Amino acid sequence: MSGAANEVLEQLWARKSVRAFSDEPVTAEERRLILEAACQAPTAGNQQLYTIVDVTDQAEKERLADLCDHQPFIAKAPLVLVFCADCDKWLRAYGFAGIEARRPGVGDLLLAVSDANIAAQNAVMAAWSLGVGSCYIGDVMERCEEMRGLLALPEWVFPAAMVVFGRPTAQQAERQKPSRVPLGAVVCENRYVPWDETTAREALAERAGIKGYDAWVRAFCARKYESGFSREMTRSVEQYLEMFQ
Amino acid sequence: MSGAANEVLEQLWARKSVRAFSDEPVTAEERRLILEAACQAPTAGNQQLYTIVDVTDQAEKERLADLCDHQPFIAKAPLVLVFCADCDKWLRAYGFAGIEARRPGVGDLLLAVSDANIAAQNAVMAAWSLGVGSCYIGDVMERCEEMRGLLALPEWVFPAAMVVFGRPTAQQAERQKPSRVPLGAVVCENRYVPWDETTAREALAERAGIKGYDAWVRAFCARKYESGFSREMTRSVEQYLEMFQ
Repeated sequence: MSGAANEVLEQLWARKSVRAFSDEPVTAEERRLILEAACQAPTAGNQQLYTIVDVTDQAEKERLADLCDHQPFIAKAPLVLVFCADCDKWLRAYGFAGIEARRPGVGDLLLAVSDANIAAQNAVMAAWSLGVGSCYIGDVMERCEEMRGLLALPEWVFPAAMVVFGRPTAQQAERQKPSRVPLGAVVCENRYVPWDETTAREALAERAGIKGYDAWVRAFCARKYESGFSREMTRSVEQYLEMFQ
Repeated sequence: MSGAANEVLEQLWARKSVRAFSDEPVTAEERRLILEAACQAPTAGNQQLYTIVDVTDQAEKERLADLCDHQPFIAKAPLVLVFCADCDKWLRAYGFAGIEARRPGVGDLLLAVSDANIAAQNAVMAAWSLGVGSCYIGDVMERCEEMRGLLALPEWVFPAAMVVFGRPTAQQAERQKPSRVPLGAVVCENRYVPWDETTAREALAERAGIKGYDAWVRAFCARKYESGFSREMTRSVEQYLEMFQ
């Protein structure tokens, strides 16, 4: 990384996604340290508005791999954690004190989604510090109906993030981390400034490479945005949102 | 922390919210390291689906402090970053390649909200490693109409997280980090298990203290859930969601 550094900065910088895992297990102690680090993350009002489903059953991992846009590497991960935004647990806690509280709304949901992702990122960095790689699976938001059944999600609970963990294969350990766009294309001062054509072309020039901006962007858009999984994500999230509206 | 440790784990564990800042500035180099660490965070398809608004203007900080449930300490923070979930930038990038892409949906929004919070948590940990404390301000999701005006947010951009940064005062540095609920109240195996009364009472016993569960939960519910800011959060988020539906 550029400039002054310390161990934490170096690891935040170095961490990259790992999608192929060696046969080495994630030990029970490592699992505990990863989960405890997740729970030590910042959380709104110290409420920990999430529940973490630790998927250990192999058949369930395989079903998850299939439901999450058919990515077989998910089923090969020794540790699979689903971070659910949980607007149910405090509602129950209130109920046990005799309170009939209001129904959760989309504000409560979004706050819980934030809590869940912040906790997930602590888990990811804890794992990295132990030599354990990880990959976020955004597709866990898809296939609402089947996902609810598989994870037994009740009303007011939304699978906000899934992270799969394992030790990287040699190939994955050596893989170069894809570079980010320059800071100037991400940070504005005081007011939001939309991307203009120069910013976009410069920001994406490196990844477009010899293919050129237009051709690379067309292929990327087709693969990531106009794709089936992307449309399915919105259809599925709409289903989850219905209960909060 | 309990058990084996390393520098990263220790800092993930130790980091706590800081709401009162000393007069020491956050230097330009520290700011750069914090922002770069944010941008090195995991991000869906390497898209960095966020834009970070760095609020440097004092009058704007004061307005933000007011809009975010009237919390004056926000205006006293030397560094104020708003992590916006950005479904606009790639839409523009597609447009510059001549693509008329579909409108963003709620799936795109939630994926961007995840990206924004994951980046924010990297910023928080980078800051902590430099001796810079921070506090998440969930209230940035409130007051949609004024917030859009203040930050000049266009369509498809949602202020997912705000983090204020600064060096802790001596009192804040010494403050004990509030404890989390036991792992067993947060982690389930294979299937979601709702909180039952025993779990809730045990999980919250420490914070309820001599006040007792029922009285403590009643006061907490009134302050955090049945409060004006909490209802406003849902009203405001509903406004943002409208454009995605």
